[in-house]
Amino acid sequence: MKISELGEFGLIDLLAKMIAKSQDSKSASWRKLIIGIGDDAAAWHGDASTQLVTTDTLTEGVHFTLETTPWKELGWKTLAVNLSDIAAMGGVPGYAVVSLALLEHIEVEDVTALYEGMIEIAQKFGVAIIGGDTSRAPVVSLTVAVIGSAGTRDGAMLTRSAAVPSDKIAVTGFLGASAAGLEMLSNRLKFAPEATTRLQNAFLRPSPRVAEGQIFVEQGVRSAIDISDGLIADLKHICDASHAGARVEVNLVPVHPAVKANFGDKALELALSGGEDYELLFTARAGVIDKVRKAVACPVTVIGEMVAGKAGEVVLVDANGKPFHTGRAGWEHFTAR
Amino acid sequence: MKISELGEFGLIDLLAKMIAKSQDSKSASWRKLIIGIGDDAAAWHGDASTQLVTTDTLTEGVHFTLETTPWKELGWKTLAVNLSDIAAMGGVPGYAVVSLALLEHIEVEDVTALYEGMIEIAQKFGVAIIGGDTSRAPVVSLTVAVIGSAGTRDGAMLTRSAAVPSDKIAVTGFLGASAAGLEMLSNRLKFAPEATTRLQNAFLRPSPRVAEGQIFVEQGVRSAIDISDGLIADLKHICDASHAGARVEVNLVPVHPAVKANFGDKALELALSGGEDYELLFTARAGVIDKVRKAVACPVTVIGEMVAGKAGEVVLVDANGKPFHTGRAGWEHFTAR
Repeated sequence: MKISELGEFGLIDLLAKMIAKSQDSKSASWRKLIIGIGDDAAAWHGDASTQLVTTDTLTEGVHFTLETTPWKELGWKTLAVNLSDIAAMGGVPGYAVVSLALLEHIEVEDVTALYEGMIEIAQKFGVAIIGGDTSRAPVVSLTVAVIGSAGTRDGAMLTRSAAVPSDKIAVTGFLGASAAGLEMLSNRLKFAPEATTRLQNAFLRPSPRVAEGQIFVEQGVRSAIDISDGLIADLKHICDASHAGARVEVNLVPVHPAVKANFGDKALELALSGGEDYELLFTARAGVIDKVRKAVACPVTVIGEMVAGKAGEVVLVDANGKPFHTGRAGWEHFTAR
Repeated sequence: MKISELGEFGLIDLLAKMIAKSQDSKSASWRKLIIGIGDDAAAWHGDASTQLVTTDTLTEGVHFTLETTPWKELGWKTLAVNLSDIAAMGGVPGYAVVSLALLEHIEVEDVTALYEGMIEIAQKFGVAIIGGDTSRAPVVSLTVAVIGSAGTRDGAMLTRSAAVPSDKIAVTGFLGASAAGLEMLSNRLKFAPEATTRLQNAFLRPSPRVAEGQIFVEQGVRSAIDISDGLIADLKHICDASHAGARVEVNLVPVHPAVKANFGDKALELALSGGEDYELLFTARAGVIDKVRKAVACPVTVIGEMVAGKAGEVVLVDANGKPFHTGRAGWEHFTAR
């Protein structure tokens, strides 16, 4: 069977099962493990705190093109998507290693621009870039791994598997702006200057919700994911991991104003399925969400609730409670679309 | 300027300087950092022990071809080269994350074979594979990051920068077998069955010197590197980092018997410059090396000594003390050869 028939998530499941079977209780590493494959980051018991690690690769022509993503922004974004995974665990990012695969004819100033972008976001979040690997390749590819720790003393963190039926489902910020930004840049769409800047920044310079993730943990949230694949796809990841269903009222979804203003009928789909917003999607009791809303600086919007229904099922309803259908559900590698 | 004009190590130097300049003393991560860019792994003060991280990418057509490296061995080797970096710090490897870039038409059983190889070596060294990333790419590429800790309570470890003049220079095991194995596989050379197996295993299933690295630290060694780029190139890394020179008697270099027997005049060059042996190259006082030799199971051979001469200079001499010249010094990405 080709991996395209299995799909990205099918392949990950298969590999995760192989790894799980290989666990060795004699190994200290396995004994200390808290969360392995299948969450935003992995977690284990460190000497005194919980340790986290995540990794993500961005490949030219697959995750980005140099036509729409300048080198500096590529550097920012590659680190940002990893910090977002640490944020989605409620963790504090600490260190990053960068593996850089480059073509020989690339200009040195492009590589230094890449690092300027990476250093800029590293400084913003107090992250130290401490190593990596540089090699030749037929296509530009960047892999960053970030190591962090869980923010609280008791090791409490945010996982995909802690959602329970009747939890409210909420998101930070606004959705759809990153996918809209990509459409704008790819198709050279012209909008008003302010909308242009906002959409461009949403796509090129996403700001991971690191502080918010830590506040979530403090306020009692235990279930979250960052929106990278798209709202529906990422909510499905929570539902799968938590063996529960979800019901989302699409009219409650906070579509980014610049998307609403410029993308008409398509705006909602961009918000539901666009991906790469790097906002946090989380679930908690209504009272906890009220506390969170007061504690964070960004908007927090309730968009639905977890239900006991079919595990892994995300149901969308309109303002009248009628089923709502959308096209593409979210991003998955290998599968044809 | 193109990066090919600067070369891999020139580029790394440039990026390391940018990062160093960006250091922020207000960041806890930077304050706890012990070793950043420029050693086999980075190190920082964890809660109670020293933490280590390293990452390495293997790209098809650059680091391997699927003609000479079967999927299972590719999995073994990708993790092995990272464990070797932890070994070269004297550390204990703990966790690995794997970033996998694959073409859609790849067979699922090839990917599972890859993971079988990776799991096999992970189990051998008690390492837990705890996460990663899977994505589509136009070329197969694997990036592994391994997190470990320094083996001793006082945080002592092996670095490239701790060599001092009059230290003896020594290596574990035998050299040249991996490069010879690659030549054998690429050019379909035919040797006796035992030599064939040994050369093939040296290239496809290198065994990182993890236990040996830990013993080195216990016995008082403080300076080491793993031989990935080639003996001379890696010794030059030690010389650069330690601001010292090195003098190697080439007749003392332990050329692998299967290489000596089958590669004639070329055997010594394979041992000096071939790379990918993943043996440890280290320096210490003669008395420490004697203690190490008794404590480890593998051969330990003194091949020269550190000198106060020109920093970064590796001088090769023959049995009569006359200068010895070799061709290619070692592996470097981006530069034409």
